[in-house]
Amino acid sequence: MIEMVLLGSGNVATHLFKAFSASEGIRVKQVYNHSEKSLEFFRNKCAVTTEISQLAAADIYLMALKDDVIPEMSEKLKDLEALVAHTSGSVALDALKACPRRAVFYPLQTFSKNNAVNYSEIPFCLEAANPKDLETLKKLAQKVSGKSYEISSEQRKKLHLSAVFICNFVNHLYAVGEQICEQNHMPFDILKPLIAETAGKVQHASPAKVQTGPAIRNDQSTIQAHLELLEEGENKKIYELLTSAIKTFHGKKL
Amino acid sequence: MIEMVLLGSGNVATHLFKAFSASEGIRVKQVYNHSEKSLEFFRNKCAVTTEISQLAAADIYLMALKDDVIPEMSEKLKDLEALVAHTSGSVALDALKACPRRAVFYPLQTFSKNNAVNYSEIPFCLEAANPKDLETLKKLAQKVSGKSYEISSEQRKKLHLSAVFICNFVNHLYAVGEQICEQNHMPFDILKPLIAETAGKVQHASPAKVQTGPAIRNDQSTIQAHLELLEEGENKKIYELLTSAIKTFHGKKL
Repeated sequence: MIEMVLLGSGNVATHLFKAFSASEGIRVKQVYNHSEKSLEFFRNKCAVTTEISQLAAADIYLMALKDDVIPEMSEKLKDLEALVAHTSGSVALDALKACPRRAVFYPLQTFSKNNAVNYSEIPFCLEAANPKDLETLKKLAQKVSGKSYEISSEQRKKLHLSAVFICNFVNHLYAVGEQICEQNHMPFDILKPLIAETAGKVQHASPAKVQTGPAIRNDQSTIQAHLELLEEGENKKIYELLTSAIKTFHGKKL
Repeated sequence: MIEMVLLGSGNVATHLFKAFSASEGIRVKQVYNHSEKSLEFFRNKCAVTTEISQLAAADIYLMALKDDVIPEMSEKLKDLEALVAHTSGSVALDALKACPRRAVFYPLQTFSKNNAVNYSEIPFCLEAANPKDLETLKKLAQKVSGKSYEISSEQRKKLHLSAVFICNFVNHLYAVGEQICEQNHMPFDILKPLIAETAGKVQHASPAKVQTGPAIRNDQSTIQAHLELLEEGENKKIYELLTSAIKTFHGKKL
């Protein structure tokens, strides 16, 4: 049985709490947050506290906190002999340098407040100051998801960056598609099968190898027609830049 | 029984042929293409011809041809009394003006040569010069997919434009993610669950409402850190432009 104290009460903390609670062999003993109110969700499910001095004994103290409070929290936990880990994609392991048994347990997924997540599909990116703790994290990840990767702080920064491209920026392109549909009195539903197919295709094929569309065909007349449909503004700039980027990527003449 | 002659032998023609062949109540009588060789796939499955003068009698002549040959093909088919339709997202109905019973039957999906497609998920965008032909196209779409929308030439241009954003440009962002993974010795597999979740989320929610990431949080320190990780070049330009576009879209201060 791995006993855990969870620090934080936001989206990541809530989703991890649900995932751990649904898994055998893990027990979340306590949830900490500095504000009483944000602990509401956890109150009837486990012990809660707003005081660092009241933290329960545990094997792992897992921080799901805002990036910028991680170093100061690590200072507050420096006397703990247990494993102390954070869950951030962009914060280095060294941010926990006050803690001797420091580690990273980063779930690469997008968590929204009201969106159910299939935890078994979350890849966990692991890093630890010592090999034994890494094994513990692997076990922890396995109980929830089965998928874990050993990723250094340097790699994790790059992984977090690439997640911005394939998740946050992709979602904005979906929003642009929705906007164009609304402005032209078409339901966004028309685009949904194509969104699903586009994401589905790269589950088994390299995206570089399945690129389609006017840019990679160097189809100037369609590109020109599309540019004429777009008003001056950021959607037009996105069209121009991504068309040019696709051509460069695939070595087409500009 | 709807009898059809299919003109063309590329990806769209091949996928539509498979979809129609698997459906009750539709019979593809013949496939036309100007080149003998490209008809190979169809040869043992139905009649084929390379001669316009040899076209069989049918209810619908469906062109799955390159955009720029549609007007000249329409001239060649002008004496037909049957329904003549094209399948292009970016060509107006008027391109078939030589044909009295002209129509559009546009499947909004990305077709790659070797990729199986779930036809029941393809939305068909329909337009016809007369209402009776529109009903016929609706029946045809229903036999394959169940999903069809009446979309004018003006709307279809915008729909095709938005498909470039949510499919072609999205796929390029996947390719950038794959590139960053490769350059940092991480398997692209790590990103696949996040790609699936991001696309899955907007099947039931408005993308504008589920935007996440540093841009919408206006998290300058993460944005700066990411920009420092990116070399000068198109990936950096994409990062800058999409970050700015997300802020503008959601009314954040730049």
